[in-house]
Amino acid sequence: MERRKLLQAAALAAPAVLAAPAIHAQARVRWRLASSFPKSLDTIYGAAELFGRRVKELTGGAFEISVHAAGELVPGLQVMDAVSNATLEMGHTASYYYTGKNDALAFDFALPFGLNSRAQTAWLMHGGGMELLRKLYAGYGIVNYMGGNTGAQMGGWFRKEIKTPADIKGNKMRIGGLGGQVWAAMGGIPQIIPAGETYGAIEKGTIDAAEFVGPYDDEKLGLFRVAKYYYYPGWFDGSPQLSFYVNQKALDALPAGHRHAIEAASMEAHVWLQARYDTQNPEALKRLVGRGTLLRAYPRAVLDEAFKAAQSINAEISARNAEFKGLHASWDKFRHESSMWFRVAENTQDDYLAAALRP
Amino acid sequence: MERRKLLQAAALAAPAVLAAPAIHAQARVRWRLASSFPKSLDTIYGAAELFGRRVKELTGGAFEISVHAAGELVPGLQVMDAVSNATLEMGHTASYYYTGKNDALAFDFALPFGLNSRAQTAWLMHGGGMELLRKLYAGYGIVNYMGGNTGAQMGGWFRKEIKTPADIKGNKMRIGGLGGQVWAAMGGIPQIIPAGETYGAIEKGTIDAAEFVGPYDDEKLGLFRVAKYYYYPGWFDGSPQLSFYVNQKALDALPAGHRHAIEAASMEAHVWLQARYDTQNPEALKRLVGRGTLLRAYPRAVLDEAFKAAQSINAEISARNAEFKGLHASWDKFRHESSMWFRVAENTQDDYLAAALRP
Repeated sequence: MERRKLLQAAALAAPAVLAAPAIHAQARVRWRLASSFPKSLDTIYGAAELFGRRVKELTGGAFEISVHAAGELVPGLQVMDAVSNATLEMGHTASYYYTGKNDALAFDFALPFGLNSRAQTAWLMHGGGMELLRKLYAGYGIVNYMGGNTGAQMGGWFRKEIKTPADIKGNKMRIGGLGGQVWAAMGGIPQIIPAGETYGAIEKGTIDAAEFVGPYDDEKLGLFRVAKYYYYPGWFDGSPQLSFYVNQKALDALPAGHRHAIEAASMEAHVWLQARYDTQNPEALKRLVGRGTLLRAYPRAVLDEAFKAAQSINAEISARNAEFKGLHASWDKFRHESSMWFRVAENTQDDYLAAALRP
Repeated sequence: MERRKLLQAAALAAPAVLAAPAIHAQARVRWRLASSFPKSLDTIYGAAELFGRRVKELTGGAFEISVHAAGELVPGLQVMDAVSNATLEMGHTASYYYTGKNDALAFDFALPFGLNSRAQTAWLMHGGGMELLRKLYAGYGIVNYMGGNTGAQMGGWFRKEIKTPADIKGNKMRIGGLGGQVWAAMGGIPQIIPAGETYGAIEKGTIDAAEFVGPYDDEKLGLFRVAKYYYYPGWFDGSPQLSFYVNQKALDALPAGHRHAIEAASMEAHVWLQARYDTQNPEALKRLVGRGTLLRAYPRAVLDEAFKAAQSINAEISARNAEFKGLHASWDKFRHESSMWFRVAENTQDDYLAAALRP
């Protein structure tokens, strides 16, 4: 009691807000951020908007970053080029779109059977991943920041059930990146089709299946009307992470406070995006099932074959791409160790709870 | 190509950094933050330090929050009182310590069989949880912010194996809060013992078991030397979340920019803390197993009995505490819906990966 009184007296003696305000110059800066996504993907797009708003708030309005949907300033798939060549100062995108430049960029997004979202964030923040990615992006004049993680996604919409690995043979699926390579290795036929044309392609039978994101975004494409089997999980890209890209020279020209605002606001957007999906996906999944969507787990044998193919493809790329090899070694070690820990406390608890709460 | 050239020309015409700097006043503010934790819990304590550093950076040095370990300004368990009565402007603590004031505070930390960390964050940010908690804390003159989540913890150190629910009867375990109530309902004898005295209590046989945090922090207590069975998961408190507490009046007196700095920096600390544990725990678990620790899963029958007891206790408290009832209804709805979604994509993927990577 005596101690508390003393502390209170001390607190009163030292007023928390001192009288004299400090004045410091905040350079007025106007940047433009191009998203690779349309406004209709409101969770991903919303994270970029939140980022811009927060940077402005943190700098007393001095640093304004306007956010633009795909196509408004540059096409969605050209965001990396635009930031790299300083057409734009910033982008919000998925490194997945640029693996044609270098497969190693996939580590900033996801790989088949990759890290779950917590492990991805931990690997980047404390496991050495970010240092390796920063080196990789330096070659493009870009500095990357985490920009949200969707968590494990769904495994795609299918017109017919997949019961054995043989059912993959000849299956034309909308699936890109390394996941597409795995699909091909299993005898499937990966197809690159813009999101907006996916519905028509399934309806006409041009393709047999399509993967997109998860329940909340998939619902908007309306695929449940033309393909009734909804597979899980989205093994072809672990837990996809979005990224903020900043032009290195533009960043270097910023005052320190503005750089800190980018760092803090990107972390907030990173959390916000996943929390939003984690709130929206359960509701959307219920609606989809209510409309007749049939949930199906990928058969174990299919996952085993996909896992084997993914391991081979990773080894193959590592053999010819030193940056991929370096990132893969760090990532794979982290994957083994984090999975070993997650399967003890986290997975056991999640699985128990799922069983206990099952209606 | 034409389009890009036009864009580049436009970018060059509008210099990103305008010449005239804006001057805005940043009020000099000095606050003190009391942590409920010792510096030796370097992950939790480090998150508070990161928070303080970031707030300073975001305000150009104008807003400084000094961080103090438990006991330095106030005892660890008096942080809530100190912030509530304005002895201190801020704290970093666990609402778990204050459920004696109101059981409803547990929803800001964890409940037995509670939300996993993603669901907890989502419920607070987008599921209505934060609004309810803010109302609860307003009664104490406190505004709360998320301050890190450890994820699922371990289920405690035991001298003897727990094979059936009967083995809980008479078991003296260091376990507090609602988890302790569940333990008692199962016939166990919950004990409140300071962390530093736990080793001695197990060694002397005063207690049979003790729960603390997870591998990284538990290793430092050295419990593996006196109790060889390490149980999982930590069902007694879902996925524990830490909180930042801010005195409402102190917050109201801040300029808007400083408030935004608190909001953004707390989100960053929230991510940082879990990522740090997710990097440290796998390594610590390996070391513990290397030193002879034997991992044991709680038997299903024990979990089932604990789950039933937890449900009864929640119902019981809801019947006499309207704030608990309101929070529980919102939380339980979210728990059912998020678990339904997690068990589809996330858990399936985690479980498959754990099996595929098992050595």
